[in-house]
Amino acid sequence: MVVASATTLPVQNKTHYESRFDPLKVLQHPDFKVLDEQDLSQLKQGDDSVNLACAYNEKHEVHMIRKPHAEPGPGEVKLRVRATGICGSDVHFWKHGQIGPTMIVTDECGAGHESAGEVVAVGEGVTRLQVGDRVAIEAGVPCSRADCGACASGRYNACPNVVFFSTPPYHGTLTRYHVHPSEWVHKLPDNVSYEEGSLCEPLAVALAGIDRAGIRLGDGVVIAGAGPIGLVSLLAAKALGATPIIITDLFQSRLDFAKTLHPGVQTVLVERGQTAEEVAVKIREAAGGVDLKFALECTGVESSIRTCIFSMAFGGKVFVIGVGKAEQNIPFMICSANEIDIQFQYRYCHQYPKAIRLVAAGLIDLKPLVTHRFPLEKAVEAFHVAADPTQGAIKVQIVDA
Amino acid sequence: MVVASATTLPVQNKTHYESRFDPLKVLQHPDFKVLDEQDLSQLKQGDDSVNLACAYNEKHEVHMIRKPHAEPGPGEVKLRVRATGICGSDVHFWKHGQIGPTMIVTDECGAGHESAGEVVAVGEGVTRLQVGDRVAIEAGVPCSRADCGACASGRYNACPNVVFFSTPPYHGTLTRYHVHPSEWVHKLPDNVSYEEGSLCEPLAVALAGIDRAGIRLGDGVVIAGAGPIGLVSLLAAKALGATPIIITDLFQSRLDFAKTLHPGVQTVLVERGQTAEEVAVKIREAAGGVDLKFALECTGVESSIRTCIFSMAFGGKVFVIGVGKAEQNIPFMICSANEIDIQFQYRYCHQYPKAIRLVAAGLIDLKPLVTHRFPLEKAVEAFHVAADPTQGAIKVQIVDA
Amino acid sequence: MVVASATTLPVQNKTHYESRFDPLKVLQHPDFKVLDEQDLSQLKQGDDSVNLACAYNEKHEVHMIRKPHAEPGPGEVKLRVRATGICGSDVHFWKHGQIGPTMIVTDECGAGHESAGEVVAVGEGVTRLQVGDRVAIEAGVPCSRADCGACASGRYNACPNVVFFSTPPYHGTLTRYHVHPSEWVHKLPDNVSYEEGSLCEPLAVALAGIDRAGIRLGDGVVIAGAGPIGLVSLLAAKALGATPIIITDLFQSRLDFAKTLHPGVQTVLVERGQTAEEVAVKIREAAGGVDLKFALECTGVESSIRTCIFSMAFGGKVFVIGVGKAEQNIPFMICSANEIDIQFQYRYCHQYPKAIRLVAAGLIDLKPLVTHRFPLEKAVEAFHVAADPTQGAIKVQIVDA
Amino acid sequence: MVVASATTLPVQNKTHYESRFDPLKVLQHPDFKVLDEQDLSQLKQGDDSVNLACAYNEKHEVHMIRKPHAEPGPGEVKLRVRATGICGSDVHFWKHGQIGPTMIVTDECGAGHESAGEVVAVGEGVTRLQVGDRVAIEAGVPCSRADCGACASGRYNACPNVVFFSTPPYHGTLTRYHVHPSEWVHKLPDNVSYEEGSLCEPLAVALAGIDRAGIRLGDGVVIAGAGPIGLVSLLAAKALGATPIIITDLFQSRLDFAKTLHPGVQTVLVERGQTAEEVAVKIREAAGGVDLKFALECTGVESSIRTCIFSMAFGGKVFVIGVGKAEQNIPFMICSANEIDIQFQYRYCHQYPKAIRLVAAGLIDLKPLVTHRFPLEKAVEAFHVAADPTQGAIKVQIVDA
Repeated sequence: MVVASATTLPVQNKTHYESRFDPLKVLQHPDFKVLDEQDLSQLKQGDDSVNLACAYNEKHEVHMIRKPHAEPGPGEVKLRVRATGICGSDVHFWKHGQIGPTMIVTDECGAGHESAGEVVAVGEGVTRLQVGDRVAIEAGVPCSRADCGACASGRYNACPNVVFFSTPPYHGTLTRYHVHPSEWVHKLPDNVSYEEGSLCEPLAVALAGIDRAGIRLGDGVVIAGAGPIGLVSLLAAKALGATPIIITDLFQSRLDFAKTLHPGVQTVLVERGQTAEEVAVKIREAAGGVDLKFALECTGVESSIRTCIFSMAFGGKVFVIGVGKAEQNIPFMICSANEIDIQFQYRYCHQYPKAIRLVAAGLIDLKPLVTHRFPLEKAVEAFHVAADPTQGAIKVQIVDA
Repeated sequence: MVVASATTLPVQNKTHYESRFDPLKVLQHPDFKVLDEQDLSQLKQGDDSVNLACAYNEKHEVHMIRKPHAEPGPGEVKLRVRATGICGSDVHFWKHGQIGPTMIVTDECGAGHESAGEVVAVGEGVTRLQVGDRVAIEAGVPCSRADCGACASGRYNACPNVVFFSTPPYHGTLTRYHVHPSEWVHKLPDNVSYEEGSLCEPLAVALAGIDRAGIRLGDGVVIAGAGPIGLVSLLAAKALGATPIIITDLFQSRLDFAKTLHPGVQTVLVERGQTAEEVAVKIREAAGGVDLKFALECTGVESSIRTCIFSMAFGGKVFVIGVGKAEQNIPFMICSANEIDIQFQYRYCHQYPKAIRLVAAGLIDLKPLVTHRFPLEKAVEAFHVAADPTQGAIKVQIVDA
Repeated sequence: MVVASATTLPVQNKTHYESRFDPLKVLQHPDFKVLDEQDLSQLKQGDDSVNLACAYNEKHEVHMIRKPHAEPGPGEVKLRVRATGICGSDVHFWKHGQIGPTMIVTDECGAGHESAGEVVAVGEGVTRLQVGDRVAIEAGVPCSRADCGACASGRYNACPNVVFFSTPPYHGTLTRYHVHPSEWVHKLPDNVSYEEGSLCEPLAVALAGIDRAGIRLGDGVVIAGAGPIGLVSLLAAKALGATPIIITDLFQSRLDFAKTLHPGVQTVLVERGQTAEEVAVKIREAAGGVDLKFALECTGVESSIRTCIFSMAFGGKVFVIGVGKAEQNIPFMICSANEIDIQFQYRYCHQYPKAIRLVAAGLIDLKPLVTHRFPLEKAVEAFHVAADPTQGAIKVQIVDA
Repeated sequence: MVVASATTLPVQNKTHYESRFDPLKVLQHPDFKVLDEQDLSQLKQGDDSVNLACAYNEKHEVHMIRKPHAEPGPGEVKLRVRATGICGSDVHFWKHGQIGPTMIVTDECGAGHESAGEVVAVGEGVTRLQVGDRVAIEAGVPCSRADCGACASGRYNACPNVVFFSTPPYHGTLTRYHVHPSEWVHKLPDNVSYEEGSLCEPLAVALAGIDRAGIRLGDGVVIAGAGPIGLVSLLAAKALGATPIIITDLFQSRLDFAKTLHPGVQTVLVERGQTAEEVAVKIREAAGGVDLKFALECTGVESSIRTCIFSMAFGGKVFVIGVGKAEQNIPFMICSANEIDIQFQYRYCHQYPKAIRLVAAGLIDLKPLVTHRFPLEKAVEAFHVAADPTQGAIKVQIVDA
């Protein structure tokens, strides 16, 4: 979830966090280095002395870098990152150098925003956390100023001054050590692993969508797309007692995977050449007579959004989590004559504590989503696997145990 | 508001009302006649003995017809219609013979659904009304069956078996005498005129939109389009204490008219050739620094809908009342990055009692909207005025005093 | 859920259903008879020829009666009732003859409103159902008139003219044969038993409360009372992914039973002599640091309601499903200073289809709730078990297979 | 609105603002002095050199004090207070020394929290405001920390670490000079006077209640109590197009005053000795057949709350703004059988910008509420007028021009 808000102006030029996490402090530091073949060959796995990280740049390269060590300031914690998932947006920044009109890779930029780790040092005034605590990292740090409309109203995902780690220019959390404001890490109970903690990030996206969509116990739901976001949405929809749940995808293998996560799900294979109306008929059939009032659109693809619209009963809501083309066509009069709402999600707010609680309670099992694991030193290889659809990866994890 | 719901199937083939108001009972009745020149020349104004009406047909003609008299059945009332407004959809059916894929003029079809009148006879079992009562007519009569999902849930505008008078094939209320189910007429207090009663129909449309949009005291609102629906929306937005209110139109004369209805409104002239983004900048300027969270789109025109989207702050809602092209393009990623909801209104439900109450209390003054009046015998002339933009009509009324 | 609405007047003196189901048609029929010892001794179990039923009267007696057979009129179905649960209100009417100021037992009144059965005959015009269909019976039949504010708005539980079977004077569904409007029975899928169908009634109560309370995935919930309504609320809260869930009761045995239904539930034993504040402290501890925003109060007892209020975080909601004393004391200033909402549920509306869907999908397993079963001929014995707390019954079922 | 939240624990012992505005800095400062007769006789009206203020203490005295001058720190502004209204809670602290279990007057405590003033100095980093700006002061300053659940969620009125000026131990804004965090003052447009700015405080209370109650255009509303909060609620209800509006009070003079504010309001005089049910009958009659779904209870008196409950239609909501006795009795079963929600308001959040906008737009005219004005030097006299019901004061203002 990485698209900038075009309509809100920054509160002021530089907030505290924007200065504090200025990427030039990393890029211009003498310890900073893009690692070459020789450096890589000398890396020892899990070497505490090196702040190893993975970065992309404006030349569409992805490689390992060495970053300076940093110590936590007041209110901050220093983390040893233990697990990080690779997100589609990480791959997109690498391959395309840009998402939306404002987020542009212009230099080396550290990847990763789905991370969990261990507190290794706490800054002044931090009482809520202590060394050894296991935490999930909420990568987006809003300004939290009382005069920021977004932050003050509790909708902090709209903060125009957010520091979102891994969104250019801010370096990401796919690194060995990361300093973070203590308010924006969330303790993990003993029964939640680092890997699950890192997966709370995509789960937060799904939960935010489900929350704002207003899906409730017993509601029928279409989930469009069985990629990582679609699959965590499936897990969340299952956890809240949605029924029936119909999931769609272009690949049968993904639908089969969805079935392993939730045997009760109905699957609809989208065949190339089918119209949105035709797929919608299959979805309605799969619903077995239940009026469908909700779709969670997790692809951002125009034809899929249209399919969702055609699937809805009067008064339905198509809730778009996926991002896609800047301009898209909708069947306007179908929406009008059937009061079909279209809503959108931008990142998330207030979802981490709930996400962790649901995982800890066993209501959502994220573990099966991880199909590939690599040590931090092999992060570049991990990126290539994540970017290659023939590998069938759902979620690739970097583990730095 | 005349577009059929494509996604809900009828509960059964023929409901009570569908049979009761079968247009063939009119068209095949020996008294039915399309009036010719000679007939028209002999009409006496307000002649009680003739059930005069105005109809369009599939040959794009509009003319006067004579309909049989009908008596009220159990639970019904017979009305002497006193005032009827001409709606854009009446003109559209005349000129184009069709709205949406399902509402098609195939024969003579009586016009008019914005009407108020006087009870002249009551059917068996009607105790709530008596002869002489002055009432507004709610033209859409849903099936009200307990096994109709729409009716049972209180969202009766979604009823797939609705008899909506003036929507083909059902004859409209622009007629001298009209029989109607007693539950679907609404008493007018003494201080609400028939003309105001008839204007409660477009007001019901605006109120339904405002209600579902959730606009509240002190909210800033953009109203796109200063035609009849835009102007009643303006009156309603004023009545609920929206501020600032910005109204847009392509014609300065309409904006000037809006200013006479609400001197506090901000107006933005949309100039041909301007982009949606450019108009949105003007709208934001007119808002004077207040974040705009609501737009009431009353044109159905793609560029206007886009303008509304670009005008919104993060979390805004574009509420579409207007109908337009079947397919429309939206700035998808702007919606996504700013969580801008798009919602739609189809007709209305539960709005008449509130509309009448607001008019009676003086909170909404509909009278200035009527710019032209014609006797029933001159209804064809009225239609031509309503259809001719150079006439500058806002609302044309047929009065049959 | 059997308390009359005091503030809404009937739409008219007698609606169609009020006349149709006039209890005098039963009581004054020559076939009607209160069965004596001898009659009972001659009963053959499941004898199709006898419309056997169970009734209470104003003398606080409960006994078997014989009712006339009735045939389905237009739009009606005749049912062979197969399973009926005994509700606390059934017992209350028997023992106390009255609930609230308006529901008074004045004659023989058939018991039972939690029933499921088999269609044995269909009336004219019924196409949605056929003989042999297995259905749950929704016992409250509202007037469904377009001029009833409650019915028209979709909140039909407020209908002042409802015929609620087993609420005096209307005879209940604890009978061998029952005629019912076809719109108010709900088909059971093959994998939902009659017993489960009958349990959809208390489930509908819980679902209505949860629905209006707005409890969502990951919310913490207090459930006060582990009786039948508390336990179905527990099952529903579990199904929607509430966590943590804390349930309270005066009896450890009931809490243990709750644990068998949902091992993840936290239990808090309420000890006599403890103050509401003291119990609230235990509830907060059981919540493990999660702010509690919702309580489902299922006892109607003042001290329990107070406990719920004291358990809530700022902005919490105590949702009262239980009924109790006419007048109750609340800690007003605690509510005021913490914005704690108090809401109430009266019966239910629109919950049966969802209830059945949830049971059919395996999301809610009602079967463990049935602790005792009796044939219809032993219904009086069943009543005595249900009324005797030392028997430890959760739900007593009458089975007429 | 001055009652402490009992259920939320402070985030930490001392936040930045709690230290910054520690009252000991005033009380222990050498310039601090309780002014005696001689001091008072020497005061020159509006003397810029003296930071004159009005305070109450634990001995139930109200008197003038001299406070030290203070300069604005980073992010703060220094204000010359120009207008301050006396609130019922100011009088209550003076007379009773306590509100609720936690807000206790233990020393000299400066009064006043309804203030507007002029910026006379700005601290470091303040760019949004400049000297000469006219502002309304939001007296409650929450901690705004990202780890405060209340502040982070946008419901900052629940902040357990709020510094609410005039709530013990924090000194109030009824003073000549006041230093305030710049984020918590709100600019006044030229057409809004200081007096109106100060009245935005009680207006914020009413708006918060109306906002959360969800009252909408055309809704019928009961307002219980025609004191200052009741009257601003009346103005706000009028501004949002509520109709009918019925206001109640024990004094005809107050009802007459209400009529001058809104000629369309219906008034119901509550006579001593009438039962709540009897008054409710009068309220329903005044509503003229419209179902009442909302009451704004502005007295906090048990009998009035009961009256509101009895006045509601099924599904109504009694929204309690007034504070009163710790324990109160409610007609529980009436609430249960009619689904009457009871909700409460504690202070307000996010209302000031809207309040100012509504006043500036002319939608709410607060000026008539001011019945008495005194210069700052006569603040003690003002307190005595405000406390004496025979004076008939609605709002007493202290003007320090």
